Amino acid sequence: MNKNSSNTMALAPNTSNKRETVCIFGTGDFGRALGHKMIQSGYPVVYGSRSTQTSSLIPKDAEVLSHAEAAQKAAVIIIAVQRQHYNFLTPLAEILHGKVLVDISNNLKINQYPDSNAEYLAQLVPGAKVVKAFNTVSAWALQSGTLDASRQVFVCGNDIEAKQMVMDIVRALGLTPLDQGSLLAAREIENYPLQLFPMWKFPILLSLGLTAFFFFYCLIRDVIYPYIYENKDFSFFIAISIPNRICPVLALILLALVYVPGVLAAIIQLYRGTKYRRFPDWLDKWMLCRKQLGLVALAFASLHVLYTLVIPIRSFVRWRISSQTISQAQKNETEPLNITNAWLSDSYLALGILGFFLFILLGITSLPSVSNNVNWREFRFVQSKLGYLTLVLCTAHTLVYGGKWFLSPSSYRWYLPNAYMLSLIVPCIVLVLKFVLIFPCLDKPLTQIRQGWERNPQYSE
Amino acid sequence: MNKNSSNTMALAPNTSNKRETVCIFGTGDFGRALGHKMIQSGYPVVYGSRSTQTSSLIPKDAEVLSHAEAAQKAAVIIIAVQRQHYNFLTPLAEILHGKVLVDISNNLKINQYPDSNAEYLAQLVPGAKVVKAFNTVSAWALQSGTLDASRQVFVCGNDIEAKQMVMDIVRALGLTPLDQGSLLAAREIENYPLQLFPMWKFPILLSLGLTAFFFFYCLIRDVIYPYIYENKDFSFFIAISIPNRICPVLALILLALVYVPGVLAAIIQLYRGTKYRRFPDWLDKWMLCRKQLGLVALAFASLHVLYTLVIPIRSFVRWRISSQTISQAQKNETEPLNITNAWLSDSYLALGILGFFLFILLGITSLPSVSNNVNWREFRFVQSKLGYLTLVLCTAHTLVYGGKWFLSPSSYRWYLPNAYMLSLIVPCIVLVLKFVLIFPCLDKPLTQIRQGWERNPQYSE
Amino acid sequence: MNKNSSNTMALAPNTSNKRETVCIFGTGDFGRALGHKMIQSGYPVVYGSRSTQTSSLIPKDAEVLSHAEAAQKAAVIIIAVQRQHYNFLTPLAEILHGKVLVDISNNLKINQYPDSNAEYLAQLVPGAKVVKAFNTVSAWALQSGTLDASRQVFVCGNDIEAKQMVMDIVRALGLTPLDQGSLLAAREIENYPLQLFPMWKFPILLSLGLTAFFFFYCLIRDVIYPYIYENKDFSFFIAISIPNRICPVLALILLALVYVPGVLAAIIQLYRGTKYRRFPDWLDKWMLCRKQLGLVALAFASLHVLYTLVIPIRSFVRWRISSQTISQAQKNETEPLNITNAWLSDSYLALGILGFFLFILLGITSLPSVSNNVNWREFRFVQSKLGYLTLVLCTAHTLVYGGKWFLSPSSYRWYLPNAYMLSLIVPCIVLVLKFVLIFPCLDKPLTQIRQGWERNPQYSE
Repeated sequence: MNKNSSNTMALAPNTSNKRETVCIFGTGDFGRALGHKMIQSGYPVVYGSRSTQTSSLIPKDAEVLSHAEAAQKAAVIIIAVQRQHYNFLTPLAEILHGKVLVDISNNLKINQYPDSNAEYLAQLVPGAKVVKAFNTVSAWALQSGTLDASRQVFVCGNDIEAKQMVMDIVRALGLTPLDQGSLLAAREIENYPLQLFPMWKFPILLSLGLTAFFFFYCLIRDVIYPYIYENKDFSFFIAISIPNRICPVLALILLALVYVPGVLAAIIQLYRGTKYRRFPDWLDKWMLCRKQLGLVALAFASLHVLYTLVIPIRSFVRWRISSQTISQAQKNETEPLNITNAWLSDSYLALGILGFFLFILLGITSLPSVSNNVNWREFRFVQSKLGYLTLVLCTAHTLVYGGKWFLSPSSYRWYLPNAYMLSLIVPCIVLVLKFVLIFPCLDKPLTQIRQGWERNPQYSE
Repeated sequence: MNKNSSNTMALAPNTSNKRETVCIFGTGDFGRALGHKMIQSGYPVVYGSRSTQTSSLIPKDAEVLSHAEAAQKAAVIIIAVQRQHYNFLTPLAEILHGKVLVDISNNLKINQYPDSNAEYLAQLVPGAKVVKAFNTVSAWALQSGTLDASRQVFVCGNDIEAKQMVMDIVRALGLTPLDQGSLLAAREIENYPLQLFPMWKFPILLSLGLTAFFFFYCLIRDVIYPYIYENKDFSFFIAISIPNRICPVLALILLALVYVPGVLAAIIQLYRGTKYRRFPDWLDKWMLCRKQLGLVALAFASLHVLYTLVIPIRSFVRWRISSQTISQAQKNETEPLNITNAWLSDSYLALGILGFFLFILLGITSLPSVSNNVNWREFRFVQSKLGYLTLVLCTAHTLVYGGKWFLSPSSYRWYLPNAYMLSLIVPCIVLVLKFVLIFPCLDKPLTQIRQGWERNPQYSE
Repeated sequence: MNKNSSNTMALAPNTSNKRETVCIFGTGDFGRALGHKMIQSGYPVVYGSRSTQTSSLIPKDAEVLSHAEAAQKAAVIIIAVQRQHYNFLTPLAEILHGKVLVDISNNLKINQYPDSNAEYLAQLVPGAKVVKAFNTVSAWALQSGTLDASRQVFVCGNDIEAKQMVMDIVRALGLTPLDQGSLLAAREIENYPLQLFPMWKFPILLSLGLTAFFFFYCLIRDVIYPYIYENKDFSFFIAISIPNRICPVLALILLALVYVPGVLAAIIQLYRGTKYRRFPDWLDKWMLCRKQLGLVALAFASLHVLYTLVIPIRSFVRWRISSQTISQAQKNETEPLNITNAWLSDSYLALGILGFFLFILLGITSLPSVSNNVNWREFRFVQSKLGYLTLVLCTAHTLVYGGKWFLSPSSYRWYLPNAYMLSLIVPCIVLVLKFVLIFPCLDKPLTQIRQGWERNPQYSE
């Protein structure tokens, strides 16, 4: 990097490789990291600071001046100080008039202040063009160049030219600017980096709870019961056999829970006779995390597939099959093929394969890049039609798997039914309700309601 | 939501949290749904209607005025009426002068009118700035908030400022605006929501047809034949064995069909000696659905993998293996390891695994977000080089699987060869033709033709 | 296409379906291909050429004029000549004043010239508005319509209006314009189509080298050793058994190598006491290809899973199991279930399944469309926390798989340990170092350094 360039005014035309000087107010960690990166990308950088002594921490090629002097050297000024200290800008209002102020600040909590920091800044310095940017980038990532992901920089601002200038800087640093519109978007942009998978919290907590419940349930039935009554040590079931009972059970229940809110919403709308009243809050929230519920269900289904496919490699299974064969050979008898068993075994496997296949398809269409490329009609077709088909196939898979054991007393240990029987409750209810709802006598008024018709218009007055 | 704000003129500056009043012409379902959503997002909404009586269906916080009065209150007017009634706007031309008119209309059929609705609107009210938007969003989804996917709103218009204003509204409603350029794009935007996987129709119909054919073919060979001649009931083969014959056959044929049009195009260009003449229509269409053909082939290949991997869990297979073992044990003989069999079995499995692995890679690179991140050279490398390698591996997998049975008379029941033999026809032809085409004596002129050279320039006159 | 339209000046307003005339300088292959496509999309096209004789190669509906005449007919002029010949434009400067010049040129080598072609063009014709576009599109793809992928056209330029005009043309041709900012971006855009997976070179070469090494290592141990000492022909191990040893070994080593640079960087920063000094170049490069290393590791892990799941279908494995069963049946003995073996077998399978499952999750989050939808905090959580958990699970999987054989002399043939023992070296070192680094006495100063604190500030002077 050329050492002198930072001292010369950026008068070079835009078309040449010379970049225009950028001013940074504040010499904190993020200000320094951004300055380093900008100097690397060819921008002359000048810092505005209360104390104009060059600190050793500040990038060598940068100049440190007073706020007023620094501001005069550049068209773009990055405000790398915290919101609490923004009022030092008020006396500079005249110098800052017409300048592009880039607000890069973040808050500590979601919705910490009534207005966003960028809007507060725009109010403090009305003559400046405020642009919000860079707040989603980490100082450490900027410095170390490890921007594997999240190269995206959300940019918003009311002045299109100013936004364009900031977006050019973002691109020059090797990042991807995303125009988020006017400064009104600043609030959302400031909240964004504080989130940690907010939509996933409920589905993950729910599945953890259900996993714990079914783990102990299966432990009692499959390990403790045979240990007490038959004195057999099946403790190793904890590794594969029990997870392979929990996973399909959770996959089925969670998949069914994806379709519960839709059915409930239909019932509520039919009962109320209008679509113009809000659903209860819990239903709204449930609706919004259906995609996440479905993906968690898909994760359990995938684990179930893997656990099932390794069955023939398991040492225990090999021992059991070999023992059976040997005992048959010793008895000198040959068992004939049981056609019913062959049918049942092949059917539930086939149903499971098809269900899992459709489930994977649903998962692929929920990838952002895929769902952005389908229109509303196509998305509805996939998520609703294919989704219900998946649920039907998976429920049938479980029913056929259970098959003849449903009524067999041997499958009730300590009066506890098999886990898969419990898992069938929710999907069966959902499928029955959905089946009822597609009858014309209910489907027709529902369609009308969804098109805006109201049964008792006076209610919504 | 503040009830009064809808009565005050939207004079608040853009930087404050106050949103500018939006006017909606038309109180139909979509107009009401959009109004609800806008009020929720903080916009004062005023409806323009023929009858100014407030209907109970209209959102409570909205005002209903005559068209002229409503239009004067807002800078942005959403036209939520159908194209047939647009002519009511002609007398309002003076009031609408300089306003932003948002056309949200959809048609019932693709290319229903010679010009797009938005262009028709622009022609009717020449003084207004027409912007096309919102037509891809469903009223039901807007209202219920269930915008899991398709948050994308295509926006187009000739006036950049007007487009910017509409895009800000789109963002404020929690949707993602996509700038599609000038109003010329309106036609495509209006056709978009009417599509239902147009590119997938041919591949899916073709594969359904082939599936039906091969299902009955295998049914005759594998179920009916043994039932008649050996009186064995193999009806349960319908669940897994027959699908596991159909899937690999279809995967191979469809994968080969992906590469047929490229080979045909090369032959046509070589024959014509120019690239400046259009291909026959069917070839153009075939070329455009190659990606979809390949993905359907991948789906069948994935099903084949799943069906194959559950083989050792099948009750029938366990019975057969155990019967064989018992009969050997009873005969007191130990079969030595057949090295040839071990080689054949391991080879076709290994070829299948590698072929499937490359196939999955091809599938991943055809995800929109991945293919957008590779350049043309990289895409050609993956789709052409890796694609042909996949075809070679899968064909080899089938050939080695067939192995020594090709000439065995026992594999011809009722003179019908095995399904996999039929599946080899297309891929073998494609591979032979491609092999011929990479000889320098053909590759060289082909490369020249593709660079613009012509053999008989007078032809294209 | 209407033949006459190309002769009339483009005076039609933008809102009508008439498109404005586009001028193309140069009648080479790309100029002709682009012209064809534009005429198809409804643009009147006029070519500017030194010789104004209509060549048969030029699209029939286009007109060919002298450069000066052609330029006067259109507002947008596409420069389809090579950079070396740009100086013919200097005498035309007056006519080109205010016109939009579209630079579509590409170079033969990366960074061939000190300035980009577009910037050079802007310097030659200072009065024109230069826009860079179309260079990433292939002429052959344009003509044949086979734009399966890479519909993206990068556009950059200093004049926003000019850029908008070019982006509208791009959209009209059915391509997707991507605004890359000012003309400074032209250099990068010109380098883009010359790349062939630059980030993948090192990971792929490394894995090819390791694959070759481990192939011969396993060949010696598993095929040549038993052939010499036991005279057994296990040559068919080359198809599945040996790949299934190489794949997990490479997956584990490459996964561990993903986390080496992070640990090294932490050690270097702790040693130096500052984050404001650049890492050695090799470490920077290593950091930048971590994602690719991880994905190659995932590919090997997936192959390992497939190879493992087909084990029970292999002819050799069926023969071995059946032989063991028969010999046991003949000895008339029944082996009791070995609980330790059952535990070991189930544990390493379960660990492998969970490790692979998390690995797939990591792979999905590295899809561009997914990683663009998570913020920095979420990305760090997934890639760092889940990544280390994956490494721990996969290392444990290998350790438990090895189990009791570690010290058994039979697993050392020719003093060569099993391949999986070698594969454990790197992951164990990484995990131990990481474990040491999370101790508070090291973690605290490291966190401070990464927040900008310096131990010896004078060093960075």
